[in-house]
Amino acid sequence: MTSASGTARSATAPQAVRVDGPRLLERLARLRAIGATADGGVTREAFGPLDVEARTLVATWMAAAGLEPRVDAAGNLVGRRSGVHARQLASGSHLDTVVEGGWLDGAYGVVAAVEVAAALADAGVALDHGYAAVAFANEEGARGTQGMSGSRALVGPLEEGELGALDDDGRSLRDRLADAGGDGDRIVEARWDAATVAAFLELHIEQGPVLASQGSRLGVVTAITGRQAFDVEVRGRPNHAGTTPMELRHDALAAAAEVVLAIEALPSDGAVRVATCGFVDVRPNVRNVIPGLVALSAELRAEDARGLDAAMATVDCRVAEIGARRGVAVSVRWGQRVAPTATDPRLLQLARAVASASGGPWTELPSGAGHDAQILGQVVPIAMLFVPSRGGVSHAPDEDTDPAELVAGAQALVDLVLAVDRDEPPAEAAR
Amino acid sequence: MTSASGTARSATAPQAVRVDGPRLLERLARLRAIGATADGGVTREAFGPLDVEARTLVATWMAAAGLEPRVDAAGNLVGRRSGVHARQLASGSHLDTVVEGGWLDGAYGVVAAVEVAAALADAGVALDHGYAAVAFANEEGARGTQGMSGSRALVGPLEEGELGALDDDGRSLRDRLADAGGDGDRIVEARWDAATVAAFLELHIEQGPVLASQGSRLGVVTAITGRQAFDVEVRGRPNHAGTTPMELRHDALAAAAEVVLAIEALPSDGAVRVATCGFVDVRPNVRNVIPGLVALSAELRAEDARGLDAAMATVDCRVAEIGARRGVAVSVRWGQRVAPTATDPRLLQLARAVASASGGPWTELPSGAGHDAQILGQVVPIAMLFVPSRGGVSHAPDEDTDPAELVAGAQALVDLVLAVDRDEPPAEAAR
Repeated sequence: MTSASGTARSATAPQAVRVDGPRLLERLARLRAIGATADGGVTREAFGPLDVEARTLVATWMAAAGLEPRVDAAGNLVGRRSGVHARQLASGSHLDTVVEGGWLDGAYGVVAAVEVAAALADAGVALDHGYAAVAFANEEGARGTQGMSGSRALVGPLEEGELGALDDDGRSLRDRLADAGGDGDRIVEARWDAATVAAFLELHIEQGPVLASQGSRLGVVTAITGRQAFDVEVRGRPNHAGTTPMELRHDALAAAAEVVLAIEALPSDGAVRVATCGFVDVRPNVRNVIPGLVALSAELRAEDARGLDAAMATVDCRVAEIGARRGVAVSVRWGQRVAPTATDPRLLQLARAVASASGGPWTELPSGAGHDAQILGQVVPIAMLFVPSRGGVSHAPDEDTDPAELVAGAQALVDLVLAVDRDEPPAEAAR
Repeated sequence: MTSASGTARSATAPQAVRVDGPRLLERLARLRAIGATADGGVTREAFGPLDVEARTLVATWMAAAGLEPRVDAAGNLVGRRSGVHARQLASGSHLDTVVEGGWLDGAYGVVAAVEVAAALADAGVALDHGYAAVAFANEEGARGTQGMSGSRALVGPLEEGELGALDDDGRSLRDRLADAGGDGDRIVEARWDAATVAAFLELHIEQGPVLASQGSRLGVVTAITGRQAFDVEVRGRPNHAGTTPMELRHDALAAAAEVVLAIEALPSDGAVRVATCGFVDVRPNVRNVIPGLVALSAELRAEDARGLDAAMATVDCRVAEIGARRGVAVSVRWGQRVAPTATDPRLLQLARAVASASGGPWTELPSGAGHDAQILGQVVPIAMLFVPSRGGVSHAPDEDTDPAELVAGAQALVDLVLAVDRDEPPAEAAR
């Protein structure tokens, strides 16, 4: 492994920095073995021994690439190297998986972030900026904890309530952190000084079908979708299915069916990108009784908050109309909102240029799923790159991506890191 | 109590035969106390000790009215009196209730059928026809048994499979019959010779909202609705609610919502009277996953079989269209059909005349619920009269009917029995 010290600065003369494809794929395969399930999937829940084992392995790769690995109070693994620049670039993702998840979600972005440093070292190229490869803790929200706790601790301290709340196993996040080398009492120390971070760049599988269905090999993420959860309760009148004439019914299910279709129709005016009703509970839920009560759980996703607001107004109008027309009480409870996160405009320009230069077909698209980058995006400029997900599948054992696309994606990340590094020379940062 | 022997024949000179309202209401109140629940309802499951207690009490009322009570092999209580006519008239309903049911469902028709004999006896009037007041066993299908077992045994023997099948308590219908004075081995003896029955007349609460909502005090039943059960399975593709664009979805719930609305729309062309989807099961049923599988359970009710057939054809067409348009697999499984039963035309005419002569507002309507009369209707002429159900409620503790309406309904039954008796004089029957 070439030492990065004493190598040429990229500002002096841009070098060809190539990722080592076999190394990248072999590392992904090694992580896949940690928590492997019989059907090719992975179960590696945050803070558990398998998660810690994966983190420890990645730390050795970080060290080999000239990064100094350290586990912070939030359980994040951060491998750093300083530069001549006062600011640093960062890249990474997460190592934890959902139960019976796939091998690439998160792990790919972590291995690629380490590969950036390894490829730079191999080529004898040093960035002007410092560089940090990150494996964020608990992106998925293990055992009923709140997800993205690692990245959230970097942008602001977790609240005491979150640290003390008991999860599905009756343990607190503070306990979990202690299991995994973190420290709930020192969680504030995990926080990053945003002024020192020039960019956070995350590479991830798309987890959706857009790239694969279009034949694109690379995706440039325009924004990370915001999400507005909501619940709808439809209260009609339960009654005998044989003796109650149609015109005297107050059928909560028929009204709820209209609400489901109204939700599905929300994206048609472009306010939101997708809208989904995923949960239905019907009472009494027997064939021969007109349903009296239906609960729906749904969500909206959009790339800007005004789109979410507009769709919420539409939902309120539509359910009021449905309820009034059918003589049923329809109420909407607006739940958690995760704000949309825009890609930094300058980083987006650079990502487009990298994608164009890659020579393969690429496209711009929003990220429908949530990512650690969207948390970082609250305080620092972010960008994301996607590679295709075969069949659009994720969070499942058959989550997969073509190996050539995995290598090409990592190369694009390297190219983007170099482009961002060159885009902000040390002199500019010093102004 | 006046003895019925030696009284004037109705054919000679029609008498004013009036029900004894206080007696009718007092008897209903006494039955209400047998199995009374804290909230005013009644739980009196078929074949249980409370059911037998109620039956025993009714048998004393039958005897007091000059009827000869007897429990048959199917557990039915039949109180008979012979006439000069070779054929008999019969009336009755059931004494058993659903769990946490109401006080009038069934009990009202039994008490009124006994009141017919009692009022005739009070007035010193005898029918030309023989008369049977019946309390049918197990109309409701206690403990998971098949309902209407008592009336079904009157029209044809119960199958050995039904007699031996274990119910929710692991006991057979044969065991239950033995508990309650019946005899599964002699079930064929319960069968009636249909040729000897001129009419079966059942008085019942409507169990629906039609009479109450129209201000009618009496209902003349045109037919007892047939029922076609069916299940619909919608198989789409479960997927990430954030990453899957609307145009690439195969949302089983949105398709199912269209099916629910298509079912609700079926009565609009008049083929069926009501159509209901009462049961929904969604998989995986979480907010952020596009539903992949939805199961619906539904039913159609119509007064004629062709209407059911026509609606079934419509369902098949509509689900095929919805499935093809949305790229989801929609399959329909047609389940149990209970055939519609028409009111005998001549009895219907007489019932209309009685209702008109009653002086109060009345209406014709089909029965949406099933009744013992619909079983009897397979082999003998039937008619039914309804009184209003307050708020349309039945099978619940707040099932209720105005006392004056209960008395008026019983009077209408007496008047109908007298009208039918006069309509078929002994000479005609002898032809």
